[in-house]
Amino acid sequence: MSTINRRAVVLLSGGLDSATTLAIARAEGYGCFAISFDYGQRHRFELEAARKVCDALGVVQQIVVPIDLRAFGGSALTSDIAVPKGRDADEMSTGIPITYVPARNTVFLSLALGWAEVLGAFDIFIGVNAVDYSGYPDCRPEFIAAFETLANRATKAGVEGTGTFRIHTPLIHLTKAEIIRRGVSHGVDYGLTHSCYDPDAQGRSCGHCDSCQLRLKGFAEAGVADPTVYQPVS
Amino acid sequence: MSTINRRAVVLLSGGLDSATTLAIARAEGYGCFAISFDYGQRHRFELEAARKVCDALGVVQQIVVPIDLRAFGGSALTSDIAVPKGRDADEMSTGIPITYVPARNTVFLSLALGWAEVLGAFDIFIGVNAVDYSGYPDCRPEFIAAFETLANRATKAGVEGTGTFRIHTPLIHLTKAEIIRRGVSHGVDYGLTHSCYDPDAQGRSCGHCDSCQLRLKGFAEAGVADPTVYQPVS
Repeated sequence: MSTINRRAVVLLSGGLDSATTLAIARAEGYGCFAISFDYGQRHRFELEAARKVCDALGVVQQIVVPIDLRAFGGSALTSDIAVPKGRDADEMSTGIPITYVPARNTVFLSLALGWAEVLGAFDIFIGVNAVDYSGYPDCRPEFIAAFETLANRATKAGVEGTGTFRIHTPLIHLTKAEIIRRGVSHGVDYGLTHSCYDPDAQGRSCGHCDSCQLRLKGFAEAGVADPTVYQPVS
Repeated sequence: MSTINRRAVVLLSGGLDSATTLAIARAEGYGCFAISFDYGQRHRFELEAARKVCDALGVVQQIVVPIDLRAFGGSALTSDIAVPKGRDADEMSTGIPITYVPARNTVFLSLALGWAEVLGAFDIFIGVNAVDYSGYPDCRPEFIAAFETLANRATKAGVEGTGTFRIHTPLIHLTKAEIIRRGVSHGVDYGLTHSCYDPDAQGRSCGHCDSCQLRLKGFAEAGVADPTVYQPVS
């Protein structure tokens, strides 16, 4: 199956999962259009990471859409609520954490859909994961299926029958270790990616937030050297 | 049925339909939180209109979310493509016009959903209309139903079963004339609202774009005096 010359929109945060997703979309032969969001996140180093990942993996175009979710408040990622540290896997799997950004993936996928419509692309890639995830409702397969249905009713192509949107979630059933091995096989340099929710001024990772912990565990289980630069223990 | 003290998020463009929708939500007893969008629209007078409508009808809070859809291009409302003028009803009902903004209502409803989640509101009002509409795919009942399903899968409340989101579309089966009569019965001052896609520097309406034509026809059919200020005929 050749998908060369087909266009895909790829949601790219600059983290480990989305970088792997971009590498998979590239490997499947798509011409990739990466969309990143400047949404007032505290961990804005990920936007710089996204740019580096695009340069390294090759995209047709990258856009960064400014969308100020701080107007809503309600999440540790976009307000002054402290990022939780040192939670173990059991704690992470209980309830929905304060780092959840309300309707974030719904908003991001909607914007990706808008761009896809303009580009004439029908394939949208998002690196959501239902295994080693952080308990976010908008990372579940049921959510993705509902969005795909919506996309085909929301658009010109859906109404006019000229195409069918598909939301690709190549990581959804993989463990973090499997994601890392998959990425390594596609040549992803994870040293370019950024996962930490609470980096220091130099962009070094804290090693203790949920995102760092999942990442550390993933590299350990994958048996892959972790290229992340962590803050020195004080 | 008393809905007093229940919160609703109302999408408010500042146009005739959304002002009527806000008036209906108020009449049903909701404490209303109005959300407007600064999306690079050429007809930014509608944002000023939205503020005046909020003052007149009474809301708990209004926010204006900046979301720059110009990054995508692709619509006469957000790029340099000319706004079509002088089309009759038959022409408007054929195909999807160039004023369609890709995935606009999907993006706007997603942001309304995010704010609703933060507010603990489960009722979202949007003034879409499937009768005297402009052929936009994201104004159809099938689209709204798909979004409601999505909302209940995308959110904390949906996952935890603490509430069910409902997308209210009180105008969806009304003609423009019926909308106007409904609004008048709820005391809407349509002189505050703005519909034109291509106003002049003073904010006066062109009278010829699809939106102006639908509005003119609506007032005529409703037998209500049209308070809109139009550009002088040159």
